[in-house]
Amino acid sequence: MTSTVEPIRWRADHLQLLDQRRLPLQTEYLRCDTYEAVAEAIHEMAVRGAPAIGIAAAYGLVLARRRGVDMDQARARLQASRPTAVNLHWALTRMADQGWRSADELEAEAVEIHQQDLQQNLAMAEHGAALLPEGARVLTHCNTGALATGGHGTALGVIRTAHAQGKLAAVYATETRPWLQGARLTAWELQQEGISAQLMVDSAAALAMARGMIDWVIVGADRIAANGDTANKIGTYALACAAAQHDVGVMVVAPSGTFDLDCPDGNAIPIEERGPEEVVRVGERVLAAPGVSVFNPVFDVTPARLIRALVCERGATKPPSRASIAELLAPG
Amino acid sequence: MTSTVEPIRWRADHLQLLDQRRLPLQTEYLRCDTYEAVAEAIHEMAVRGAPAIGIAAAYGLVLARRRGVDMDQARARLQASRPTAVNLHWALTRMADQGWRSADELEAEAVEIHQQDLQQNLAMAEHGAALLPEGARVLTHCNTGALATGGHGTALGVIRTAHAQGKLAAVYATETRPWLQGARLTAWELQQEGISAQLMVDSAAALAMARGMIDWVIVGADRIAANGDTANKIGTYALACAAAQHDVGVMVVAPSGTFDLDCPDGNAIPIEERGPEEVVRVGERVLAAPGVSVFNPVFDVTPARLIRALVCERGATKPPSRASIAELLAPG
Repeated sequence: MTSTVEPIRWRADHLQLLDQRRLPLQTEYLRCDTYEAVAEAIHEMAVRGAPAIGIAAAYGLVLARRRGVDMDQARARLQASRPTAVNLHWALTRMADQGWRSADELEAEAVEIHQQDLQQNLAMAEHGAALLPEGARVLTHCNTGALATGGHGTALGVIRTAHAQGKLAAVYATETRPWLQGARLTAWELQQEGISAQLMVDSAAALAMARGMIDWVIVGADRIAANGDTANKIGTYALACAAAQHDVGVMVVAPSGTFDLDCPDGNAIPIEERGPEEVVRVGERVLAAPGVSVFNPVFDVTPARLIRALVCERGATKPPSRASIAELLAPG
Repeated sequence: MTSTVEPIRWRADHLQLLDQRRLPLQTEYLRCDTYEAVAEAIHEMAVRGAPAIGIAAAYGLVLARRRGVDMDQARARLQASRPTAVNLHWALTRMADQGWRSADELEAEAVEIHQQDLQQNLAMAEHGAALLPEGARVLTHCNTGALATGGHGTALGVIRTAHAQGKLAAVYATETRPWLQGARLTAWELQQEGISAQLMVDSAAALAMARGMIDWVIVGADRIAANGDTANKIGTYALACAAAQHDVGVMVVAPSGTFDLDCPDGNAIPIEERGPEEVVRVGERVLAAPGVSVFNPVFDVTPARLIRALVCERGATKPPSRASIAELLAPG
């Protein structure tokens, strides 16, 4: 199963990132020759999606090594570019694991991180699709597709695989305010893949559930605590609250690296808040009066009790619990 | 209690409408010397909000009478300007009630419709504010303020009155996709009134509730069924689903004319759906790839079981039920 969308291209001496700020109207690659450029691209969200950020950061360390800069400083700078994403920390830790190796060794490691992510996504897509009934109607939030990962996608990967299996009767995507990843990226990516879908504003999903239009909400994760509480894009918890009023399952799909077993529950997950700009403006268009105060959290936490299934490349736990998660992630 | 926001100004020989299309960046009045200009202003949404539209149309008939035009034609033209608005039909019918009276009599009637709406709003604001605890933290959705009514507002009127009573510790407004009435109008109106508030995307409200930031969600209504099921701006039901997961009350505030006792429950309320444009564009800014399919319902229905209090100018029912609503609306 190949994807037509290729967001991260490694070119040995530089990294090319499909500039997601310009989608869907322009398909343009941002060239990064330095780790600082990669950190900036992550911070400015030219590249986004927890796995994609981790992969880009790993390549960033290769660029840093090639330039002979202070590797601990490079790692710290990349780590600071998006504090909530656990994959970023995971990828940087893996790259630094045996001390700072040669640039060629680091490059091989980064390529492996990239390839493993794609393989993991293909595996978890199979596990997730197996949970869906024939003729399933699914809704996804944010963008968790090829654009957000090393390829295929996590939650959107489940949808892609289930679609290929002929299992899906309807696909819905929320626009995902404030950054509009659903409108700008997911709707575009589904279009690229020839998967027919409908876009809606985030708060219309509750009505769609009340009408019986949706069987499963399928989302990714930025961090999953040991008890299954899941941090994901703002709006995920709102969808789970609506799903709880109906017979709608919430499926969280993420690689095992997203689990943070040191984190006992959702209360221990830090939630990044950003400035007002992305709420009060869309491009140059000003939406609200100057000086309006804004609450702009980027993530929210969905408690495990509202999640019907957690899926990673190793399999699924349904329903999730501290014990079933520990078992799923146990070595061997 | 006076309001600094005056969206409808009657000037005896013409009507001045605060042009809401230009808010929040420009405060500009549109001068209407003819009923045709009023109809155009309604159609083009220079004036919006069901009560405000009814009031503007009533003044439009006064202008028509002064010019000696065919009154039935004027009424038909005004009625066609927003065919689905219930208050518009109600106001035009009331103006035509005893045949076409003199211009001075029609003027007195229009002024009375305007004043009655304001008086009702002031009354329901007192009833609603009385339900709030000292130090209440409240969230509102869409725009239900002076801009949408004859003055003071419905749900926003409760917030205005509670603020004047010194009862509010925090006020939050959702941006209200897709039309962004919260970002464009409510945030501006609160600013004008000196009520400090924070704006958030619709789907951030669930996280705010999880953090214990909100005690009450206060919203208006477009139609309330006999059992208390309430149709309101899309996103209201999503907020009620989130409130149900927390100790957050949902208060619906609307004049008694909003109750439709012929409508047994929410299933009987028709939900208008609109085209894709307002979801895939903001102004000239294109948000989604061309050709994307869109589900764009304008309203949703919140079941009575998720509503803690229904408030109208006659009082409040808490919790609402078929019997308590019938009692509240009973004549005498």
